[in-house]
Amino acid sequence: MKPNETPMFDPSLLKEVDWSQNTATFSPAISPMNPGEGLVLRPLCTGDLNKGFFKLLGQLTEIGIVSPEQFMNSFEHKKKTGDYYVIVVEDVTLGQIVATATLIIEHKFIHSCAKRGRIEEFVISDEGRGKQLGELLLSTLTLLSKKLNCYKITLECLPQNVGFYKKFGYTVSEEKYLCLRNQK
Amino acid sequence: MKPNETPMFDPSLLKEVDWSQNTATFSPAISPMNPGEGLVLRPLCTGDLNKGFFKLLGQLTEIGIVSPEQFMNSFEHKKKTGDYYVIVVEDVTLGQIVATATLIIEHKFIHSCAKRGRIEEFVISDEGRGKQLGELLLSTLTLLSKKLNCYKITLECLPQNVGFYKKFGYTVSEEKYLCLRNQK
Repeated sequence: MKPNETPMFDPSLLKEVDWSQNTATFSPAISPMNPGEGLVLRPLCTGDLNKGFFKLLGQLTEIGIVSPEQFMNSFEHKKKTGDYYVIVVEDVTLGQIVATATLIIEHKFIHSCAKRGRIEEFVISDEGRGKQLGELLLSTLTLLSKKLNCYKITLECLPQNVGFYKKFGYTVSEEKYLCLRNQK
Repeated sequence: MKPNETPMFDPSLLKEVDWSQNTATFSPAISPMNPGEGLVLRPLCTGDLNKGFFKLLGQLTEIGIVSPEQFMNSFEHKKKTGDYYVIVVEDVTLGQIVATATLIIEHKFIHSCAKRGRIEEFVISDEGRGKQLGELLLSTLTLLSKKLNCYKITLECLPQNVGFYKKFGYTVSEEKYLCLRNQK
């Protein structure tokens, strides 16, 4: 697989999200199919390697050094599992990715072999701010998790960002989030 | 695939875990290869459907109604991704699964396309209690995450269980854990 327009998942899924169930307020009104002038919301494509995808992730955290081969291997694995829904907003004038978020489906044995969703790698670029893109991506993935029959969807965030997520129906769980960092 | 002894992942991986790095104290000393008299620690096998695997999960939460076909489909998907490490302890005298825990590998683009681990579906049966099996499973999966090159491993737990995890080096993250339950 070479960097081209191969999407990580079927783009038509984004059309099928029931936007009427969106709980956030958008002004002006935007939607997955109409994300704003000069913008397109779509699945991550292999070609986005050359459209600033990693530069954008670098605004979230350390991205390290990633070769095109590493990117393609990771992309292919994610695509193959069918459990990774990485969406991006491209500014088509700039030819750059200005926002991204990922929905990961986790398969359980509990709750009749249920599926749950997790939100990860969620970042809006400096260029993409002030365009409601954070709200758009989160709402899109939340509704997509419902369409994909996830019984719940979760995420971890810094305390100061809790208010943002509450607008979409998320609540702080009674459960604590614990972490252990492995030494190399 | 029919219920038989097909393991979810290569059992030899459990032998390769570096138990000398274990940080918990076991008395008497047990290990993944010597989990205690009459007990075996191994990957989940398809045949565990008939060894009380779901009865055990029922002590954790609601399991719903699961047909053998649903179980096999979920098992096959997990095995195929290569990202699900479900381990069990079988009491070979009883022929029953008395403990289970799962390590799920999540693939990132950040941190040079890193891998991270998550602990899920962790439960010890009433019959398995008092045998240090909780400590054994958690320590095994934590060390396995290191062997599999996860840069970090995380989990969510009730506040009263935080102390248990601290023994293994886990700390409560600054981040909050947020949840949204999808209506059917």
